[in-house]
Amino acid sequence: MVGVFYAVIPAGGSGTRLWPLSRAGHPKFLHTLTGTSASLLQATVDRLGQLAEPESTYVVTGVAHAAAVARQLPALPDANILVEPSPRDSCAAIGLAAAIIAARDPHAVMGSFAADHLVRDGDAFASAVRAATDGARDGLLMTVGITPTHPETGYGYLRCGEAVGAGQVRRVAEFTEKPPYEVAVSYVESGEYFWNASMFIWRVDVFLAELLRQQPQLHAGLMRIAHAWNGVDRERVLGEVWPTLPKISVDYAVMEGAAAAGLVGTVPGDFGWNDVGDFHTLGDVLERDERGNVVIESDDGAVGKSDILLHDTDRTVVVPRSGRLVSAVGVHDLIIVDTPDALLVCPRDRAQDVKKLVDSLKERGNPHV
Amino acid sequence: MVGVFYAVIPAGGSGTRLWPLSRAGHPKFLHTLTGTSASLLQATVDRLGQLAEPESTYVVTGVAHAAAVARQLPALPDANILVEPSPRDSCAAIGLAAAIIAARDPHAVMGSFAADHLVRDGDAFASAVRAATDGARDGLLMTVGITPTHPETGYGYLRCGEAVGAGQVRRVAEFTEKPPYEVAVSYVESGEYFWNASMFIWRVDVFLAELLRQQPQLHAGLMRIAHAWNGVDRERVLGEVWPTLPKISVDYAVMEGAAAAGLVGTVPGDFGWNDVGDFHTLGDVLERDERGNVVIESDDGAVGKSDILLHDTDRTVVVPRSGRLVSAVGVHDLIIVDTPDALLVCPRDRAQDVKKLVDSLKERGNPHV
Repeated sequence: MVGVFYAVIPAGGSGTRLWPLSRAGHPKFLHTLTGTSASLLQATVDRLGQLAEPESTYVVTGVAHAAAVARQLPALPDANILVEPSPRDSCAAIGLAAAIIAARDPHAVMGSFAADHLVRDGDAFASAVRAATDGARDGLLMTVGITPTHPETGYGYLRCGEAVGAGQVRRVAEFTEKPPYEVAVSYVESGEYFWNASMFIWRVDVFLAELLRQQPQLHAGLMRIAHAWNGVDRERVLGEVWPTLPKISVDYAVMEGAAAAGLVGTVPGDFGWNDVGDFHTLGDVLERDERGNVVIESDDGAVGKSDILLHDTDRTVVVPRSGRLVSAVGVHDLIIVDTPDALLVCPRDRAQDVKKLVDSLKERGNPHV
Repeated sequence: MVGVFYAVIPAGGSGTRLWPLSRAGHPKFLHTLTGTSASLLQATVDRLGQLAEPESTYVVTGVAHAAAVARQLPALPDANILVEPSPRDSCAAIGLAAAIIAARDPHAVMGSFAADHLVRDGDAFASAVRAATDGARDGLLMTVGITPTHPETGYGYLRCGEAVGAGQVRRVAEFTEKPPYEVAVSYVESGEYFWNASMFIWRVDVFLAELLRQQPQLHAGLMRIAHAWNGVDRERVLGEVWPTLPKISVDYAVMEGAAAAGLVGTVPGDFGWNDVGDFHTLGDVLERDERGNVVIESDDGAVGKSDILLHDTDRTVVVPRSGRLVSAVGVHDLIIVDTPDALLVCPRDRAQDVKKLVDSLKERGNPHV
């Protein structure tokens, strides 16, 4: 790869649909969910190790989790843990990193990767990102496209246009974030769409120019902050400006409009990507027994290993985190999450609705959220 | 009612299909399961209060639960808590009480009633038992017949014969304990059968004569024990004789053969009987919310009241006994039993199979049984 590659990892969001395992106080990206001892965040940094040095790897996180992030990633310099004063959605988070990197290296290529996704094949992932940097260097805002398997309404969809250059890069004719269900169905059936895997690879100058065009207020705020970043006024400026930044995702703020202007490209990614959005999805990607059951043990040693007894039980996802005996009889396609203070039982096809449950708990002021 | 009525309550069995609520160390009859503060045993004694004085009420229980039984029933005289040295099934337990009562009152009418069944209408229950005492006084081994609602294979079935006398008493033409499923189906479809509710009303002399005829060894052993009961040798004789008694239920030992000899009668009982054999059954008899869910809280104050959050959930039985938040989303017809050291999840139509699970735990030497 020509030049230094900068990796940016926005680590925000509590993973509501993974409640009661994931909590506001201990979000998804800090968890070991994959049967290894690495948290999703650590696994993300490890995976990016082929592409970026620790010195050019940045994590953007919130005040609540800055300490945990810093401790989980001892190889990263202190200065590379960017702490947001408050959550302002992904455009502010990614934009902050882009502005800071641009101040250091104006034409740098950076990639942004979620802290809490799973990738099965790290080498294939690195190859796809390298292929995307070709398009990024040529001035495209690059994405990685995943072949969709079902009409998921929580993702962005990329409609492919013509090839750009001799490599794998294709122009994106349309970028549609979170389409309605019927639209998602037609996209999947057409065979012309990829899922956007929330991976963005671009030259920081190209991204910031597009941000200036589409979101001038956000751009101006980030520039003020980046300008003050290495000075004595950093905290004062951050404190003043950050709360005024528009709260919007990068998909809506930049990508949809950039695609309409012909500025977005994509490369296909076939590396076992999964956003681990809910327990059903998690059950699909982890190792299962001969009856399709998945038991997601903890590796952190916080509780004793649970006894698990699944009798005549199929395709069930069990998350034992209380040290208690967890038993099921005659159950199929169920999710059972057993934590020290809360239990969840939910069919796998209702895994998305865990969010509603958490919303309901929040409304009641329940302390278990 | 003419003469003193003696009530006998065999309190044995751990209620395996109610695991993990019911344990070998804390069996079903000691539990509050009905939303009131009385245990099933206490409710049984209360219900019999219309028919028998505490002085003529006996409980037969095992060594493990003698103290708990005695404390739950402070009104019963010490001498009326009959403690078996080891479990020898129901014929030995009920026969012991019959022999001891016979030594006190040779022609007494006694009734035997399980310690862990539910009866909704106590007055109707008392009326049925009073009607049965007519047949008992006339020399029949009386039962109470419940109109069957489904082909249950765990019960005894009574085929009715001709009326006896002017009251409700009918002779039982056939007594079949635990028929195979196909047989149970044909019984229920015929409309000629009742379930035996494990209630037996008879003159102690009639029962002991029939025991002598069908089970002479059991009869002889019980006579030796009863003879020694009020003397200094009670414990020595019990210790010697009890382990030699045939281990057999009263249904097989006496009732099937007595019915074949024309000695069994029945009266219909329509008082909301339920044997609370499993969580599904329990869910059918207790008060449910508008979606058919039943939450069986504890009244014993051992744990804090649990938060329960059932979102889009129907006909589900929740037994919260750990003080944790119990939540379910999109679940129907499920059983969720949450105790401090073990969790069970099971569809209601598999409630019988909890026994298999417990057997499997026993095989493994698991301490949670």
